[in-house]
Amino acid sequence: MRPAADAEVDVGIRIYALAARLYPICRSITGEGVRKTLQVLGQQIDLTQHEVPTGTPVLDWTVPQEWNIRGGYIKDASGRKVVDFADHNLHVLGYSAPVHRTMPLSELKAHIYTLPDQPDLIPYRTSYYSEQWGFCMTHNRFLAMEDGEYEVMIDSQKADGHLTYGEYVHKGETDRDVLLSAHICHPSLANDNCSGLALLACLAKAMRGRKTRYNYRFLFAPGTIGALIWLAHNEANAARIDHGLIVSCVGDGGGPNYKRSRRGDATIDKAMEYVLNREDRKGTIKDFSPYGYDERQYCSPGYNLPVGLFQRSAFGTFPQYHTSADNLDFIAPEHLASSYKMIMEAIDILELDWTPLNLFPKGEPQLGRRGLYSALGGDKSAGETAMAYLWVLNLADGQHSLLDIAERSGMAFSDIVRAAQLLRENDLLAEAA
Amino acid sequence: MRPAADAEVDVGIRIYALAARLYPICRSITGEGVRKTLQVLGQQIDLTQHEVPTGTPVLDWTVPQEWNIRGGYIKDASGRKVVDFADHNLHVLGYSAPVHRTMPLSELKAHIYTLPDQPDLIPYRTSYYSEQWGFCMTHNRFLAMEDGEYEVMIDSQKADGHLTYGEYVHKGETDRDVLLSAHICHPSLANDNCSGLALLACLAKAMRGRKTRYNYRFLFAPGTIGALIWLAHNEANAARIDHGLIVSCVGDGGGPNYKRSRRGDATIDKAMEYVLNREDRKGTIKDFSPYGYDERQYCSPGYNLPVGLFQRSAFGTFPQYHTSADNLDFIAPEHLASSYKMIMEAIDILELDWTPLNLFPKGEPQLGRRGLYSALGGDKSAGETAMAYLWVLNLADGQHSLLDIAERSGMAFSDIVRAAQLLRENDLLAEAA
Amino acid sequence: MRPAADAEVDVGIRIYALAARLYPICRSITGEGVRKTLQVLGQQIDLTQHEVPTGTPVLDWTVPQEWNIRGGYIKDASGRKVVDFADHNLHVLGYSAPVHRTMPLSELKAHIYTLPDQPDLIPYRTSYYSEQWGFCMTHNRFLAMEDGEYEVMIDSQKADGHLTYGEYVHKGETDRDVLLSAHICHPSLANDNCSGLALLACLAKAMRGRKTRYNYRFLFAPGTIGALIWLAHNEANAARIDHGLIVSCVGDGGGPNYKRSRRGDATIDKAMEYVLNREDRKGTIKDFSPYGYDERQYCSPGYNLPVGLFQRSAFGTFPQYHTSADNLDFIAPEHLASSYKMIMEAIDILELDWTPLNLFPKGEPQLGRRGLYSALGGDKSAGETAMAYLWVLNLADGQHSLLDIAERSGMAFSDIVRAAQLLRENDLLAEAA
Repeated sequence: MRPAADAEVDVGIRIYALAARLYPICRSITGEGVRKTLQVLGQQIDLTQHEVPTGTPVLDWTVPQEWNIRGGYIKDASGRKVVDFADHNLHVLGYSAPVHRTMPLSELKAHIYTLPDQPDLIPYRTSYYSEQWGFCMTHNRFLAMEDGEYEVMIDSQKADGHLTYGEYVHKGETDRDVLLSAHICHPSLANDNCSGLALLACLAKAMRGRKTRYNYRFLFAPGTIGALIWLAHNEANAARIDHGLIVSCVGDGGGPNYKRSRRGDATIDKAMEYVLNREDRKGTIKDFSPYGYDERQYCSPGYNLPVGLFQRSAFGTFPQYHTSADNLDFIAPEHLASSYKMIMEAIDILELDWTPLNLFPKGEPQLGRRGLYSALGGDKSAGETAMAYLWVLNLADGQHSLLDIAERSGMAFSDIVRAAQLLRENDLLAEAA
Repeated sequence: MRPAADAEVDVGIRIYALAARLYPICRSITGEGVRKTLQVLGQQIDLTQHEVPTGTPVLDWTVPQEWNIRGGYIKDASGRKVVDFADHNLHVLGYSAPVHRTMPLSELKAHIYTLPDQPDLIPYRTSYYSEQWGFCMTHNRFLAMEDGEYEVMIDSQKADGHLTYGEYVHKGETDRDVLLSAHICHPSLANDNCSGLALLACLAKAMRGRKTRYNYRFLFAPGTIGALIWLAHNEANAARIDHGLIVSCVGDGGGPNYKRSRRGDATIDKAMEYVLNREDRKGTIKDFSPYGYDERQYCSPGYNLPVGLFQRSAFGTFPQYHTSADNLDFIAPEHLASSYKMIMEAIDILELDWTPLNLFPKGEPQLGRRGLYSALGGDKSAGETAMAYLWVLNLADGQHSLLDIAERSGMAFSDIVRAAQLLRENDLLAEAA
Repeated sequence: MRPAADAEVDVGIRIYALAARLYPICRSITGEGVRKTLQVLGQQIDLTQHEVPTGTPVLDWTVPQEWNIRGGYIKDASGRKVVDFADHNLHVLGYSAPVHRTMPLSELKAHIYTLPDQPDLIPYRTSYYSEQWGFCMTHNRFLAMEDGEYEVMIDSQKADGHLTYGEYVHKGETDRDVLLSAHICHPSLANDNCSGLALLACLAKAMRGRKTRYNYRFLFAPGTIGALIWLAHNEANAARIDHGLIVSCVGDGGGPNYKRSRRGDATIDKAMEYVLNREDRKGTIKDFSPYGYDERQYCSPGYNLPVGLFQRSAFGTFPQYHTSADNLDFIAPEHLASSYKMIMEAIDILELDWTPLNLFPKGEPQLGRRGLYSALGGDKSAGETAMAYLWVLNLADGQHSLLDIAERSGMAFSDIVRAAQLLRENDLLAEAA
């Protein structure tokens, strides 16, 4: 058996490889790109693919028409392609209307998006709910365009169809759920969010072999509208979510960052804070704010679910964000592996956490008689093991979970769990009702 | 139309001019000085003048006799006046009994008050409830007094009469009140409190043209006994006070300072904290303490009203405090103007604050469809406008006022108000019950 | 009458002298050493001596056999004693089984305890609940032992008998109790806890002459098992404990340290925090943790009594802890005196604290009329005396004790008490129900 470190690297390599397969696919909030992505993810896990027809009312929204694109380019007067969708699928504005015309540069300019401050990068732009057409390109290429007539062609289609999303549930022993969700709507952006999709698919696969207390619900859905559809169609399931995590941008070396749920003191908030402060990770914990990914929907006041956001670099803060530089060079197996490890540690906490009740609450029970306490007295301290017993017994009043006890005592969660388990086996603890 | 900056200066000049008219009047807690002051203030606003007879029981107190003074002096053996009330009305102890005698310096000394550490200033001293006579003078003049006989004369009168205070109410749309109060009992002290009297009178005048939600009750009453009288005679009105501010020492360049109400988390406390931390004002916020001005009475445990104290330099902390140096040179139009502005900003908050309820609390409503959200997706941030919408919607659970939302989001209150108003016009918000 | 400072030194000398008498006695959790100690303490106060038979079930525990020791030594082949219990009663493992054999050093080694990092000190070790025999010695002496045969002799006896503890109750006017407890089970360790035993005995003696509100219950009982016995046999008395303090290691010059009760905000916690922050004491306040002395039992979740721990140097943190260096040179009269003073100050707070109700809660009552307020107005501040009146009146809403008011106002507790008393005498305050 190889050391754990190698196993971790292996996970990172597998996630990276999967992300690399997803990267070239042109995704949007609907269309063949989403289906193709779910097909790739479905090779890892037994995904359920949901298709929701155009026009379906969803809370305050309506499922839009399905968008698909075959190609697009700008040609100059000499017939040379200035930009070509075939080169990079960021080149065409997401949800762009079709167009095929010739027009002077002066008119074309209004349809071109660039990043003057990052002149070598192509920006990522979309227009889902407003009819527009457009191209995205590097600012330098744009500056090099000479006056004259250009042929613009976008071979896209918006038509009644479906919005597609994927779902996978790992069944646990109880009827309480953990939600893990990654947005599937971004095209060739490696960190945001091929990384999240690939990580969750690999994690779901790993969970298959594990007997868990919770059900683990994995969602691969387009941002905003996908979460809204799931929520609108899953009132009962939503009420079963005890903990949830939105996963995005988990492949770069920044952070880690965790944004708390709107509740601010949910168990997932405490668990992630614990995980992000272990092993010199020095993670950053931010309070909830209503901008970001689908935590916006899960934490809307009508749901207020205990769902936080896990990232490495926080969205909007790194220069590669929403540009062509968010490519496969920007993410790395070791970062994916460590992100995977942190999420798995949080899952371990959720699985192992319980609220103990001391069955001998009056005074300390005699631990020595049960072999749980050193026979020799007089040492300076009780030792770590004994301290874990003492902390658990003292706080086992039904008001403190093991995670609370770890937090309060400053001891490792795993030590607290082990102590609680041994105390329970010695009939000193029960699980609080 | 001139720029706002000039309008502000104008306000400051008008307040200063009014304070300058009040400064020479010899006020005390009763008497003609108070009536003359109310007459001057009454030229600005339609004041109601209340006269409460001597002997009226007021809670644990009794309205004292009315005090008036016509003159007073100390003459040396040569007939030269050492001090003369005609020169400065601080020269005679407030509420001094009448006296006309000749006595040696050794006997007179017990009736003379000076400031040895500020030898060129005349102190302000009173003896409302204990029969005394006395003079206040500079320590240097006192040191120059030679042994010998002196003629002392105080032509004052304490007799049954009335205690006088002024009141002005600007009617609003609701039956809830904002209290604004300044003490009228101090004689020639410019900052404490000609500044407060003049500022509130000008503010009351400005409010006349304004349609408000709240009633604004302006009180110009002698310290302590005046507030007690108002409270004792206005049980129903006191119960209608949602917010209140005591205003004193608002003409110097110090501070700003705000002392919280006894409650500590009243809306007026949050509003003043917000105002005093805007625009690099770096205001100081102090917790309630039971010494100061009439917040002592409004915040007594039997009332516990949400009333705080606004000042520039805090009382007792500046060298001019309660001396002849608190004169018209110590206050300035620009400081009066900025104090006025801060109070007006707090009033704006009180007027504009409300508690929203999200009518589409499940998920975000589709803002783009309503023209409230940029059609183009992919930018790094939502932009300030969109963030204001998102914050308001997310916290519009009936538990957060707009001021709370501004505080939580770190955004400008005005931006939050504007966003809430637009969301309300789009039927996305209602006012919480 | 001599100055207080001398009286304080006297107390320290008396406590020291008593500790010095206790020091040579070989105590354990049972046996003649405990009885002899109680006899010495009983010369100060009228102690009740409780004897609990071996085998008595106590909560989750059972009273162990009584242990007594007459002597013990290790002799080398030449008949020279390597260690002798007669030299230091730390030399034999507490509760050691008897032994008399000859054995090679190689076999003996497993029964010898030393401190390699403190090679000149004898460690303190015990084995109450596991049958063992052993010796404790300096590491240097141990290193000097040559291979060969050694005669080991421990003349001890474990037999059915009793566990002994002492109790003294100073009766107060009410039926509410203050618990003061020191562990009696440690042999020749001066700070831990001859200091605590001697201090509490002297304090109990001093309390005899004092009329108190509370009953003061002094416990001198073996650690853990003693507290458990008392709790098990005193359900009704335990429920009457309003405040409690465990006292140990009060003779050295470190600290002071206070560990909060499990509740964390008990009155004893506030009182000790107040005391430890007075007079530049710069005491350290720590949150409760479930290791230490008998606060472990009193603060177990089934009791959760308001009992904290007072120490000078905290246990386990000073190099002399649980070694032969914790001797009479390590403690000093002046430290015992200042520890005594701090505990007495806390008792004064408990005795003098009460929760006032303002009988004139609407506005300030007229203090001047009652001679409680300076007749002369205009000073910069109200003065300390007036401030104490104002604070008490303002917070006398039945929700704040005098200690709370001292804390909130930042004023001295004694000033607040005096002000409250005078206000009460003037019928302005009553005690809240």
